[in-house]
Amino acid sequence: MLKQPSAGGDDGSGFTPLVVVELAPDAKEEAVVWLTRKISDSEQSGGAGLSVQQLWSGTAETEKDNPNVFLVGGSRQRLLSGAEDLGLFKEFNDGSMRAFTCANRDNFKDFKGDGDGFLSMAECQYIVKHELDSLRAKSETHIPGYEKAKLYPGKSIIRRMQSKGILVQVFPLHETEELKRLSFTWYKKVKLSLQPLDEIRHYYGEGLALYFGFLEYFTFALVPMALVGVPYYLFDWESYDKYVLFAGFNLVWCTVILEAWKRSSATMAYRWGTLSRKKAFEEPRPGFRGVLGLNPVTGREEPLYPNTKRLLRVYLVSVPFVVLCLYLSLYVMMVYFLMEGWALSLHDAEPTFWTTVLTFVPSVIYAVVIEVMNLIYRYAAEFLTGWENHRLESSYQNHLVLKVLVFNFFNCFASLFYIAFVMQDMVMLRQSLATLLITSQILNQVMEAFLPYWLQRRRNKKMMRRARKRASPPPAEMPLADQVRLEADMSTYLGTFDDYLELFLLFGYVSLFSCVYPLAAVLVVLNNVTEVYSDAFKMCHVFKRPFSEPAANIGVWQLAFEAMSVIAVVTNCALIGMSPQVKSYFPESETQLILWTAAIEHGLLALKLILTFVIPDVPKHIQTKLARLEFESLEALKKKVRASTEVG
Amino acid sequence: MLKQPSAGGDDGSGFTPLVVVELAPDAKEEAVVWLTRKISDSEQSGGAGLSVQQLWSGTAETEKDNPNVFLVGGSRQRLLSGAEDLGLFKEFNDGSMRAFTCANRDNFKDFKGDGDGFLSMAECQYIVKHELDSLRAKSETHIPGYEKAKLYPGKSIIRRMQSKGILVQVFPLHETEELKRLSFTWYKKVKLSLQPLDEIRHYYGEGLALYFGFLEYFTFALVPMALVGVPYYLFDWESYDKYVLFAGFNLVWCTVILEAWKRSSATMAYRWGTLSRKKAFEEPRPGFRGVLGLNPVTGREEPLYPNTKRLLRVYLVSVPFVVLCLYLSLYVMMVYFLMEGWALSLHDAEPTFWTTVLTFVPSVIYAVVIEVMNLIYRYAAEFLTGWENHRLESSYQNHLVLKVLVFNFFNCFASLFYIAFVMQDMVMLRQSLATLLITSQILNQVMEAFLPYWLQRRRNKKMMRRARKRASPPPAEMPLADQVRLEADMSTYLGTFDDYLELFLLFGYVSLFSCVYPLAAVLVVLNNVTEVYSDAFKMCHVFKRPFSEPAANIGVWQLAFEAMSVIAVVTNCALIGMSPQVKSYFPESETQLILWTAAIEHGLLALKLILTFVIPDVPKHIQTKLARLEFESLEALKKKVRASTEVG
Repeated sequence: MLKQPSAGGDDGSGFTPLVVVELAPDAKEEAVVWLTRKISDSEQSGGAGLSVQQLWSGTAETEKDNPNVFLVGGSRQRLLSGAEDLGLFKEFNDGSMRAFTCANRDNFKDFKGDGDGFLSMAECQYIVKHELDSLRAKSETHIPGYEKAKLYPGKSIIRRMQSKGILVQVFPLHETEELKRLSFTWYKKVKLSLQPLDEIRHYYGEGLALYFGFLEYFTFALVPMALVGVPYYLFDWESYDKYVLFAGFNLVWCTVILEAWKRSSATMAYRWGTLSRKKAFEEPRPGFRGVLGLNPVTGREEPLYPNTKRLLRVYLVSVPFVVLCLYLSLYVMMVYFLMEGWALSLHDAEPTFWTTVLTFVPSVIYAVVIEVMNLIYRYAAEFLTGWENHRLESSYQNHLVLKVLVFNFFNCFASLFYIAFVMQDMVMLRQSLATLLITSQILNQVMEAFLPYWLQRRRNKKMMRRARKRASPPPAEMPLADQVRLEADMSTYLGTFDDYLELFLLFGYVSLFSCVYPLAAVLVVLNNVTEVYSDAFKMCHVFKRPFSEPAANIGVWQLAFEAMSVIAVVTNCALIGMSPQVKSYFPESETQLILWTAAIEHGLLALKLILTFVIPDVPKHIQTKLARLEFESLEALKKKVRASTEVG
Repeated sequence: MLKQPSAGGDDGSGFTPLVVVELAPDAKEEAVVWLTRKISDSEQSGGAGLSVQQLWSGTAETEKDNPNVFLVGGSRQRLLSGAEDLGLFKEFNDGSMRAFTCANRDNFKDFKGDGDGFLSMAECQYIVKHELDSLRAKSETHIPGYEKAKLYPGKSIIRRMQSKGILVQVFPLHETEELKRLSFTWYKKVKLSLQPLDEIRHYYGEGLALYFGFLEYFTFALVPMALVGVPYYLFDWESYDKYVLFAGFNLVWCTVILEAWKRSSATMAYRWGTLSRKKAFEEPRPGFRGVLGLNPVTGREEPLYPNTKRLLRVYLVSVPFVVLCLYLSLYVMMVYFLMEGWALSLHDAEPTFWTTVLTFVPSVIYAVVIEVMNLIYRYAAEFLTGWENHRLESSYQNHLVLKVLVFNFFNCFASLFYIAFVMQDMVMLRQSLATLLITSQILNQVMEAFLPYWLQRRRNKKMMRRARKRASPPPAEMPLADQVRLEADMSTYLGTFDDYLELFLLFGYVSLFSCVYPLAAVLVVLNNVTEVYSDAFKMCHVFKRPFSEPAANIGVWQLAFEAMSVIAVVTNCALIGMSPQVKSYFPESETQLILWTAAIEHGLLALKLILTFVIPDVPKHIQTKLARLEFESLEALKKKVRASTEVG
């Protein structure tokens, strides 16, 4: 475990603060004492066996500071046994990845002496989080001091305190030195090299590293499309047979890159040890409500909620609601087109300065309305998904992602579909596509990075000023207390959802109408390059450090991207079928043209399906390594069985 | 273990013959002795620890009898430890299915006393087969007496002897009493009840029971389609809007029944303990050739064959060959249509008796040519797949199934596709469909059951006559030696491949053109009912007993049926789009009609996809039970870890 250099001030002998636990400033004393005792009690007596320290042990300077901030750490031995509990995969002596066990620790590659530096700080923090989360009530019926915060045997204490507002937040600390080094190699160094994915994983965990890996992969995968697209723009190749070639190339390319990504992500996940890691049993999410009963899986008492009720809520309320919202979104779009037509006709009839302005008004209104609708819908989707009462966080996330995805897809692309297939106006389609793509890119960069950065900067300055007031001359390194105070105020990174969503929509702009706007790929590549920098910056300086999240793949997003590439086959075939160049091949019969288009489209879809089957998702050499592990564990089991038979 | 009542004559104290090992009559004495010693040696000294007896221990009566026939059995203790090695799942006291372990044996439901009757005879035979298969060479470099039959450490002895022709066959014995009981409840009792699937599984294993389960399920699933189809035939409902309704119903129904089958098969596989059973490490198939090297998975020395070479063979030879065969099949079909057109025109010009006969000639020639092509292709496919040199039997089977499937699909349906979409002759389509369906059903029943039955009967009579000659009066029960001789001569059941293929093609007849021939479902239901009886009969009386094969699902066939149902959406939409009734809705524009048809087809395909995602493959209550097992093993692991940490 890496010791944090800046943590030398406040802590006692050998205590390295890993995670900050912030309770409400007005939390009742008895609850605070009870929780800290639970954290520091030994495992045998039902505690977590971790060390805990109050941040301002008697030294709270200002009254504004919250006294109930605690630092949690753990002894090296405790963290190693926690790693074993979690089934953390580490590199073995022979280069393979294996579940860490204390008994076998000397056979792991980086395990030297007493294991100093073996676990990364992110791993230690993840272990501490896991241990905190699995602090369970035994005989307590409620949290001391809070009659209403009911507990039952086996309920996670932290989750209950969080859902009752007694616990404000639990977050891992940044490592200032490590962060400086990482941000230098990541984005400060002006260079043309790959991102340091292994270091990102080391600092932020696999989930985030996979996002950045995907962002990088996606950018590189679009470069060939961009290169092919540039001459179309430069030389004004308006002939449609060239567009047909371009679209054909794009369709095959999209399939291939998505399949290849699966392999490349499996390779990364294998290197990081998450590919064959078994998921631990999932706890109910904090917001889950139900009637106390026996869980049929664990046999423990916990709230239960009938699955049929949930399904009824999903199919009878959520699905109709989403359909209604989609209809509303279509309706708003139709109103926009009506308004625009009306404004244009006014302008054409009697062109003045004011009518010119008027022609822009519908677009502006539409853009604003779309943003507002997206915002409202997001809240509604979160509320509805919460109300569906999913037991697991993963199932909650899947339902939320699906809802938001479908609506965003509609909002972004419905107008383009309308222009392409109802109005059949290719010039307008190209203009709208370019406008939408560029504005959404600019908006995103501002909303995502610059705004939070500016807010954070203001906050930082305030803090520094305060610190300078207190101690002059200011110390070269920020004291731990200030660091904790600073980080506690930072915004919380809400996960990779919005980042993936952005990439998903960009992928849509590139693939759906690729044959009418070949420059889209170029724009997206440029956007992605800046996106790497702004995302890296925001992770390092704008947000609290997130807990690392083990992940073996990009999950539901792989499916979303594949669905998009299937829709792209349909749209591109239709666009090509509508092009005058292709139409001229069938001068006498439109029917023949459509039949041919449909046949080619079915052929392409079948080809995609076959490619998906034929290309193995996991590269051969990784498959072999996984099979080897499986085989060894089978052999070990056999030996054990044989030994026990011989004894028995 | 059930003792075989008829096995009381020849065997010594407590020896129950389970499996027959037949070596070549001219096998060298030293090889025979070496093999029998290997089988009976204890496990510690590298043997299988089973008991072995020569069938004609000095009593071979006629010179025609092969002296090298051996009976293999095993002590109860040996078979139980073999069950543990294999990870056989049995019912636990709490009703769940768990891997059997000797240490825990008293907690299994049917384990009483010393375990008599705990393992079924089929399970015992499967265990014996596994133990025989895993008899491995140690320091031997070749089979004694056969310089050319090379061995290397770890090579399966049985497989090498089989591939060199020293070993003729290994097969399990029937249980006469049990078989009588099974065949009575299965097909002799005239009744309208379900098949005794659990008993079939008990006697033949999970693979075959799943086939019969699927046959039964498929028959019941077609009943609603048949019921809806009958009035169309009876009342001559020729109006196409009714056909549209029928086709729509069929498409949704096909998707639903295939999804529901997955759930029902998961339920069965859970009950039989194969659902969560882990596959043991697979050995190379007997025909696999390669250069000796270290297997990267096991680290053992065995023949290796580079994967790239295999892929080259598949893509550069097999795929072009299959495409060529498909082209040939199409070419033959075109010749057939030409010949038929020519014969019809001759008949129309000058109708005589001979021209009437002539109109039938092309059909007869085509039918014969198709059968011959199927036969030749099957040999070619087997040769090619063998030449591709797959390491695993499962991968060999998958490649073979795919090759045969595609060609059979073409051969059966190409002419129908041609009639439907090129000639657009619905009356001819209906006639051809009916002719093909009925002839193929009759042919199948004859080839599959009656012919082998008749051959078997002749053989049986001969045997009985011989036995009667020897001993008069004839004994009430056949002596074991005669039973073995009789069964050794029976044909070998080559697996469920042909049975599934037949169902697959029937499913094609029902689903692909359902809207033009609603009676197809009725015919298929009738066929399936007789199929159950003839298949049951052939399993009980025509074929050798097959080794039971654990299976959790119907494997690649699920995929094949789903692919068929996707193709059915396309064909039915096209047929409906071509119907005059639907055409009359779009009197002025054919383009509109085609666009609508395409749109509806895409909608249906999307609906199918969504249904596949939304319906869980495993029923909730089975998921819960599986999760419970998983959770318990995790908990047990944790406890073990904790205990070892406390000790350490």
